[in-house]
Amino acid sequence: MSKLVESLYAEIEKIQAIDIHSHVRQLEPSAASLRELLSYHYYTELAFSSGLPKEKMADHLPDDQMVPALVEAMADFDNTVQYGWMIELARKLFDFKDRRLTGDNWKALSDAAAAKLGGDGWMDEVLRRGNIEKVFLTNTFSEDLEGFDRRLLVPCLRCDDLVFGIARPETLDALTARTGVTVSDIASLKKALAAVFDYFVQHDAKSAAISLPPEFVCESVKPSEAEPLLAAALQGEPLSDQESAHLRSFILYLLADGCREFKLPMQLMIGPVRGAYHHGVKGGTDLVANTGSLAQYTDLFNRFGDVTFTVSYLSPTMAHELLTYTWIFQNVRASGHWWYANIPGYIEPDLRCRIEALPRTKLLGYYSDAYYVEFTLPKFNMYRRCLARVLAGQIEMKRLSEGEAMAVAICLLRDNPKEIFGV
Amino acid sequence: MSKLVESLYAEIEKIQAIDIHSHVRQLEPSAASLRELLSYHYYTELAFSSGLPKEKMADHLPDDQMVPALVEAMADFDNTVQYGWMIELARKLFDFKDRRLTGDNWKALSDAAAAKLGGDGWMDEVLRRGNIEKVFLTNTFSEDLEGFDRRLLVPCLRCDDLVFGIARPETLDALTARTGVTVSDIASLKKALAAVFDYFVQHDAKSAAISLPPEFVCESVKPSEAEPLLAAALQGEPLSDQESAHLRSFILYLLADGCREFKLPMQLMIGPVRGAYHHGVKGGTDLVANTGSLAQYTDLFNRFGDVTFTVSYLSPTMAHELLTYTWIFQNVRASGHWWYANIPGYIEPDLRCRIEALPRTKLLGYYSDAYYVEFTLPKFNMYRRCLARVLAGQIEMKRLSEGEAMAVAICLLRDNPKEIFGV
Amino acid sequence: MSKLVESLYAEIEKIQAIDIHSHVRQLEPSAASLRELLSYHYYTELAFSSGLPKEKMADHLPDDQMVPALVEAMADFDNTVQYGWMIELARKLFDFKDRRLTGDNWKALSDAAAAKLGGDGWMDEVLRRGNIEKVFLTNTFSEDLEGFDRRLLVPCLRCDDLVFGIARPETLDALTARTGVTVSDIASLKKALAAVFDYFVQHDAKSAAISLPPEFVCESVKPSEAEPLLAAALQGEPLSDQESAHLRSFILYLLADGCREFKLPMQLMIGPVRGAYHHGVKGGTDLVANTGSLAQYTDLFNRFGDVTFTVSYLSPTMAHELLTYTWIFQNVRASGHWWYANIPGYIEPDLRCRIEALPRTKLLGYYSDAYYVEFTLPKFNMYRRCLARVLAGQIEMKRLSEGEAMAVAICLLRDNPKEIFGV
Repeated sequence: MSKLVESLYAEIEKIQAIDIHSHVRQLEPSAASLRELLSYHYYTELAFSSGLPKEKMADHLPDDQMVPALVEAMADFDNTVQYGWMIELARKLFDFKDRRLTGDNWKALSDAAAAKLGGDGWMDEVLRRGNIEKVFLTNTFSEDLEGFDRRLLVPCLRCDDLVFGIARPETLDALTARTGVTVSDIASLKKALAAVFDYFVQHDAKSAAISLPPEFVCESVKPSEAEPLLAAALQGEPLSDQESAHLRSFILYLLADGCREFKLPMQLMIGPVRGAYHHGVKGGTDLVANTGSLAQYTDLFNRFGDVTFTVSYLSPTMAHELLTYTWIFQNVRASGHWWYANIPGYIEPDLRCRIEALPRTKLLGYYSDAYYVEFTLPKFNMYRRCLARVLAGQIEMKRLSEGEAMAVAICLLRDNPKEIFGV
Repeated sequence: MSKLVESLYAEIEKIQAIDIHSHVRQLEPSAASLRELLSYHYYTELAFSSGLPKEKMADHLPDDQMVPALVEAMADFDNTVQYGWMIELARKLFDFKDRRLTGDNWKALSDAAAAKLGGDGWMDEVLRRGNIEKVFLTNTFSEDLEGFDRRLLVPCLRCDDLVFGIARPETLDALTARTGVTVSDIASLKKALAAVFDYFVQHDAKSAAISLPPEFVCESVKPSEAEPLLAAALQGEPLSDQESAHLRSFILYLLADGCREFKLPMQLMIGPVRGAYHHGVKGGTDLVANTGSLAQYTDLFNRFGDVTFTVSYLSPTMAHELLTYTWIFQNVRASGHWWYANIPGYIEPDLRCRIEALPRTKLLGYYSDAYYVEFTLPKFNMYRRCLARVLAGQIEMKRLSEGEAMAVAICLLRDNPKEIFGV
Repeated sequence: MSKLVESLYAEIEKIQAIDIHSHVRQLEPSAASLRELLSYHYYTELAFSSGLPKEKMADHLPDDQMVPALVEAMADFDNTVQYGWMIELARKLFDFKDRRLTGDNWKALSDAAAAKLGGDGWMDEVLRRGNIEKVFLTNTFSEDLEGFDRRLLVPCLRCDDLVFGIARPETLDALTARTGVTVSDIASLKKALAAVFDYFVQHDAKSAAISLPPEFVCESVKPSEAEPLLAAALQGEPLSDQESAHLRSFILYLLADGCREFKLPMQLMIGPVRGAYHHGVKGGTDLVANTGSLAQYTDLFNRFGDVTFTVSYLSPTMAHELLTYTWIFQNVRASGHWWYANIPGYIEPDLRCRIEALPRTKLLGYYSDAYYVEFTLPKFNMYRRCLARVLAGQIEMKRLSEGEAMAVAICLLRDNPKEIFGV
């Protein structure tokens, strides 16, 4: 089968992908250095998990102390795909020749990286080598969406702060700064949100996005119930857990209203348990739980039949639910595999099921979730390999011809993102 | 491995299967037309899910409007196994030569289908081509079980109405019509149920069957508790959720009593969430949930040690539980893969585990769940391919010889259904 | 791929494994006879499950009645890996030549087994043929840890009795006998536990171990809350479910304190539902549930950052959680596959994910959980085959070279157990 996988991969590589979710910074899309690339939380958290003390990775240490310590610790997980991303990135972008980072070769790689990172046209070059046409951003409502090429980097409204931190002074101040509206009740909140949506759509935003914990309670809350909760929150009064849940759900529904009015799909990323590990490195304290269910979202999906929801799960115990929801709900799309589920051993079985059971037009293959544009390349290539293996399986079992398999691949990587998000 | 899969499939095809669960109508087992075949809920729901408005599939539209619209929409999911069922059926039964339905070829297929469907001996011919000996029906208690060949189509008592709708006037009237008993209390309910079982067993019924939602509460309820609940329900008084749950469980246990007395296995199909999607097409509004557990049924399995329970799950999160229950409980059998779990990507991993861990005599391979007898053919063949792939894997890893693998296949498709249901 | 699997297996077989969890009896590590080997609960429960009445396996029956009856019943599950263990064991240890046990060959095998079992140096011979260096025991606190080779058989403190039966007279009496301490309150309980740990560490114990039900509530309980609960329990007063849960959790944390002080890793085996099947054979009444979550253990893992927890799950619905916990928590290790999850179809997909996502230094490959040392051989070989297949897949997809793959295998089977448990 290997030959078939390779020939499929060669074809899939030629599909110019759309990356529908990243944390790339619009004004500084690249990492500044090898050290910054290696500081991606995947590496620091796995190094820490393998036993490297945090002090050895401290910000204040000079490169020639921090990097070799990290590189040495990384040898403990050189079996992983996460490690593989770094190697593929180094080889494809910085002409690195080795299979492993070592105390002997990191310096040369660091120099090679420094020579390229942030140079003129570098991002375009990275995307060209990764064969990625556009990268979606994740912008908080207060971000300035000017000063960059919005055809290449596509703004998206990140809703987390609005749902989970509406009553924080910094949220309220930033809302006023963005919209001119002082939020004092539901009416002014709606006005502020409308102004946010308007600003984003004026600046070519193509979706709203939010990540939700496994126990999120999503239900329709009446304005008459929400009004006093919002008032109390704005005055700094503590809410009970249930009151908080209701207020959050109310705001999520307001945001869905915005998506409806401004015709934006909403990206739901379901599953992170925030801050569960007290001793972890920065970005390495969140976990997953097997206890969430999409049942929590049926009311949302039912009420907003004209809003497209693209959904990702963090726990594979939700994979089959998402398959069935995409199967039945006209407005639900199965989206990519992310973070703790972004591992070939999880992607491939689920991808196989999706391709066997769901309309190819309803599948969003992948997104990078990258913080630096450099990581879009190896992550997309990892996914392309998964896709090649899964499609080779379908061809081998004579379910799909090679042409039909490639039609699926084109939908997943390019056509569906373009059609669903209108880019 | 492909060659081994093909040679195994060729052998497996020769095993005459028993289809232990379908919704085939005993007096009208075939679809009336291509249009009716295409109206199978899998196609209408996936077409709707892909964006086809319901109006384009409306009953009142003439064939030459409805069928081409549906065929065009189906192109969006021509990657799926569900689509594949239609093509295999068309090729094996109606001499269709193409790989895809199109605006150009549907008319000729429709004519070819019309020429055969419902003709004399057609059902026998379908079953002969599908190499299926018997097809089990799913009959509500009120159905007439005469006027058809009961060796070919095996009656089964569907219990859903009795458990979930005992107090509905139409249920009560139909019970009286069937049994002569007017249900007014537990004693008369028992009498009516006994008469139903008696009628079914007299008419060669071979099992009882029920589908249960993931949150079904299955527990022993005392008659002294159930009596006033039944009385209230019969008088149209509303019951609380807990009271309804207790009454339902009480009736399920009465039905298990009936299975014991009349020596019928009980087929439990666990998992559908009914009516969860408000906008779906007919038959396309139900969902699945990852929250159910077989733990809810341990009391039932413990109390009715002399009743055989054949169990299917709708959510793969229950797959391992079912494996362990079949492993330990003498009276539990792992049954086939159905509906949202009837996808090779779900079937094969679970089937592998069952074959590696469970007595082959306790495994029921598959059932079609078909509404028209025509679909028994492609569904069983899909399963046979899964079985061939899984067994090839076992042979390749030298766990089983080819002869041993075929012994497993014969158990799954034929011998176990015959032995367990006594056909 | 078969050739690659075989060559990898040949290399993996050469790695001398460490078996970190078994129930082997230190003074009588071997079974006494073929009958005793066949009485392993896997065989009696599967035979019973397949329909063999318990009376046919009764203790009082002579071998030539009981064994042939069991052997005949076992034919119903000769497709399983559990059956395969018996055959591989018979072939590798007793020169058995057949693929199946029959009424004709069991007697000769029984004689061959009798000639070897329990002979001088037999255990060493078994371990040599299985290429296993050390086997960990599971010893209750009251066991005598003298009179055997503690370099070969490594003592471990089993904590189940202490957590789940602290107030039983036999527990208290045995604690006094072991430690000289009469437990009357928390202070004396701590003293007794410290003496237990001390005795175990003095006798080269290398871990503590406990199996926990899926619904175990693990949370920090204050001594001031626990004191009256312990007092009530010691006086035989009934505790509410919640009180029992709190007392158990309090004791588990005391044991974690002991692990910290005495520098022992704690093995958590999460998932058995005890006594769920009322009619099962001895050892065949426990089940699994898909409802547990590692979230119940985050507090424990957070508080005891300097205790290493090696974790196994019984329900695969916890597999991804364990992967992410091992990924993030410095003090968590993903451990082997056991009991209902000890099936290649469950092991391989999870093992693939672990190798793709986790530092190879944090993975414990396998343990036998065997009651007789003879079973360590076929169980480890089954795992080695799984490992060979998974690694072959990684090599085929060009993620790992053969050398890198073998480095992973050595970590899993030998180096990590040695490093983590200090043997």
